[in-house]
Amino acid sequence: MTPYAQLEAHFAELHQLGHAQAMLYWDEAVMMPRGGGLARGEALAALAALAHRTLTAPQVGDLLDAAEAGKDQPTEWQRANVRSMRRMHLRAVSLPEALVHATQIATMACQQIWRVARAENDWNAVAAPLTEVLALAREEAERLGDALKLSPYDALLDAYEEGTRAAEVAQLFDDLRGFLPDMIDRALGKQRKPLPLPGTFPRKHQRKLGEEMMRALHFDFARGRLDVSHHPFCGGVPDDTRITTRYSEDDFVESLMAVLHETGHALYQQGLPADWRRQPVGNCLGAAVHESQSLFVEMQVSRGRAFMEFAAPHLRQHLGGRQGDVAWSADNLHANAIQVARGLIRVDADELTYPLHIILRFELERALIAGDLAVADIPQAWNELMSKYLGLSTDGNYKDGCMQDVHWFSGLFGYFPTYTLGALMAAQWFSAARDALPDLERQIAAGEFAALVGWLRREIHGRGRLKTAPELLTEITGEPLSLGPFKAHLERRYLGG
Amino acid sequence: MTPYAQLEAHFAELHQLGHAQAMLYWDEAVMMPRGGGLARGEALAALAALAHRTLTAPQVGDLLDAAEAGKDQPTEWQRANVRSMRRMHLRAVSLPEALVHATQIATMACQQIWRVARAENDWNAVAAPLTEVLALAREEAERLGDALKLSPYDALLDAYEEGTRAAEVAQLFDDLRGFLPDMIDRALGKQRKPLPLPGTFPRKHQRKLGEEMMRALHFDFARGRLDVSHHPFCGGVPDDTRITTRYSEDDFVESLMAVLHETGHALYQQGLPADWRRQPVGNCLGAAVHESQSLFVEMQVSRGRAFMEFAAPHLRQHLGGRQGDVAWSADNLHANAIQVARGLIRVDADELTYPLHIILRFELERALIAGDLAVADIPQAWNELMSKYLGLSTDGNYKDGCMQDVHWFSGLFGYFPTYTLGALMAAQWFSAARDALPDLERQIAAGEFAALVGWLRREIHGRGRLKTAPELLTEITGEPLSLGPFKAHLERRYLGG
Repeated sequence: MTPYAQLEAHFAELHQLGHAQAMLYWDEAVMMPRGGGLARGEALAALAALAHRTLTAPQVGDLLDAAEAGKDQPTEWQRANVRSMRRMHLRAVSLPEALVHATQIATMACQQIWRVARAENDWNAVAAPLTEVLALAREEAERLGDALKLSPYDALLDAYEEGTRAAEVAQLFDDLRGFLPDMIDRALGKQRKPLPLPGTFPRKHQRKLGEEMMRALHFDFARGRLDVSHHPFCGGVPDDTRITTRYSEDDFVESLMAVLHETGHALYQQGLPADWRRQPVGNCLGAAVHESQSLFVEMQVSRGRAFMEFAAPHLRQHLGGRQGDVAWSADNLHANAIQVARGLIRVDADELTYPLHIILRFELERALIAGDLAVADIPQAWNELMSKYLGLSTDGNYKDGCMQDVHWFSGLFGYFPTYTLGALMAAQWFSAARDALPDLERQIAAGEFAALVGWLRREIHGRGRLKTAPELLTEITGEPLSLGPFKAHLERRYLGG
Repeated sequence: MTPYAQLEAHFAELHQLGHAQAMLYWDEAVMMPRGGGLARGEALAALAALAHRTLTAPQVGDLLDAAEAGKDQPTEWQRANVRSMRRMHLRAVSLPEALVHATQIATMACQQIWRVARAENDWNAVAAPLTEVLALAREEAERLGDALKLSPYDALLDAYEEGTRAAEVAQLFDDLRGFLPDMIDRALGKQRKPLPLPGTFPRKHQRKLGEEMMRALHFDFARGRLDVSHHPFCGGVPDDTRITTRYSEDDFVESLMAVLHETGHALYQQGLPADWRRQPVGNCLGAAVHESQSLFVEMQVSRGRAFMEFAAPHLRQHLGGRQGDVAWSADNLHANAIQVARGLIRVDADELTYPLHIILRFELERALIAGDLAVADIPQAWNELMSKYLGLSTDGNYKDGCMQDVHWFSGLFGYFPTYTLGALMAAQWFSAARDALPDLERQIAAGEFAALVGWLRREIHGRGRLKTAPELLTEITGEPLSLGPFKAHLERRYLGG
């Protein structure tokens, strides 16, 4: 076997471990009885250790050297595959197993404490464990930074979206921070209050509606499922993609939009190149691109007026709305789906205020990783930025302030920016799709998504990691990541025109 | 670390791989969309290969030698743990990886062909792939036999129930083969036809009933679930034990009895020693002991008259039977649950005819492994024994004859006897439990299962693999595996007295 062929065989095994991990995570969130948690945690930790050991096996570095020097990868896909392998290997070998293990223990403990403490608004309970988690994250960032020749924070960011740098993010965010507050004021001034949609909407009716929307968007139910979990997510593997939502029987919008959001993630996963299933190059790009796919379907498509034209009759049929009742008209449903309000909670935020939640977190976590902000000072810093950006106070309200998200407590630093980078990208892709499919709005209003999904598959999903995200963006949209399409989208939707 | 401590760490990893395998199997049968099959098959094959590699790692043999020679296992549990490790290691190293791999490929292909061919009664389609599977099974049996110093068939049998030998099984089965035909005739002559229980029994009502019965029997729902699959089974891990059933809306008995049967398996799994979760000694004994636990709950307890006294009001409540309606009386429900009939299908058989189905398979598979019977001659041999033992013909009816069970087509030879060995054991355990708990029949009729389940946990479940099955049987029941309690049980139940 050539070095490249040996690498393919080796990384195929890693893929199979990943299959097991993905399914066990899904099961934990959707199926597992509470008493199974300890055993599951141990099993997942063992699989993670195995995967780390596979990735850092002594022969991998030599094989990569040989493959990179050799000529046994005649195709572009194979060469991209080696690049992806090298990147995974390099990150893994930068971290000693003791640090990986310590991080696992510390983050698991911290998350468990956070779950209880958040409900009790008890900042003191989490400050010490978070300090420990942060110290480990900083060590990780230092080591990765040394290996990758990046600043510590960039090294973390790069894990979630290859090639993204904090300086570039900061520039985009500075611009947004200037643009959004005024934009929000104007949108609030202009928005009309939609008619309420009161009623009781049984879960099974909401479920049927969600499945119908998924089918319309070409989600493949022979290779996937819709289930229920505490937080909506998309998991599983390309040929068995599992999304979840949650139902509230007096509000169907939240659940429906969660289904549409996760369907965007799912289409990406189901659309990955079948010929490269077991190899790194056959995987999704980073978290920002993934989020761009969910926001493409949710924000760009589903919350648009044209989509509601298509969806309104289905909503009425499944949820018992009367035809002719103006509350159930496409106009009113659309107005309902694009309400703007300044609030404390990121996951409840609309697309106008959402980036400010992200910018706040980005600034704080950069300072935390740089050592410029101590854990003890997080609540005050949070409150200050919350007042500054959204005019709201979280003084003493940790629960809805700096304790609302699990990310930091589970060791995720550098992840938050990808949400907003994904929103920018989604607008940029959608703008390109509209150029490519001049008939797009009519198709959406008619519930015809074949051309749109075909475009996504051809341009993005089916190309796996053949290109990096910046390469793909430039190739498809003609420019690097930029604010133009996002701003234009917001102005069109919220200011009319 | 001492050699023993190193072994514990090493085998703990194997346990975690087992966790992943168990959950992926459950998911495949209960949740997986059909398009996920190929990816799942590959993932499971990779995990099996990893487990095999872990078990055969070069250091394991040396560590076992050192541990066996050393003094670092002061407790009985630790010494039993080493014995269990040695047995697993010895079996694994006897089989070259190429054979394991070839078997996996051949059995997977053969099963898939069988699934289609069975529905079409097409023996010709399976004969060739089964010939290949048999050839591999014979090679495996030869190699294991050499390593374990056993005959080839005994080496297979020993995989499923340690210490069981074909000669001993043949003796028990000879006795049964003499005893049962006349016993069946007498039972059929004596049995009264129960009043029918017509109606439509919605799945969700059957499900609630099943859950209520599980709770009564101390199934721990904080550490387990009840779901639906094509064939009922018990899977998962001790702290997350998952059983399944299937529902037919015009017959609740089959589903209820499946739930009770699987609850027996589940109690065993949930009752394993918590202190030894990650080690071989903390596992269940073999397949016969496992089956004895399911048959203990199903055959010994649940199909008994006392249990129906307890269950009848619950059945009426959930399934809409009227009190006072004699069809829903404990007497009639009991008569319904113990109907005897000669039939072609093993899984539909009652406890009187079931052993004859097993004896037939045992005789044929011994001849197959010995090379005394060719695959081409199976249909005729099956038909002959079916006529001889049950007076029924399978001439030309492969579907309900030699193609009814998946076992051989998936490479399982030596497994069938454990069903009947389990039935014998169940009667033997129950007889011992009755001696230990003189009030038992009254407790069962009152739905009080704490003492009975406590006895099972203390005597059997909680002891894992501390003793072998023969040791445990002799210690608890005062004698080795024997036919006495089983015959006495059948005579009492079917001939009265």
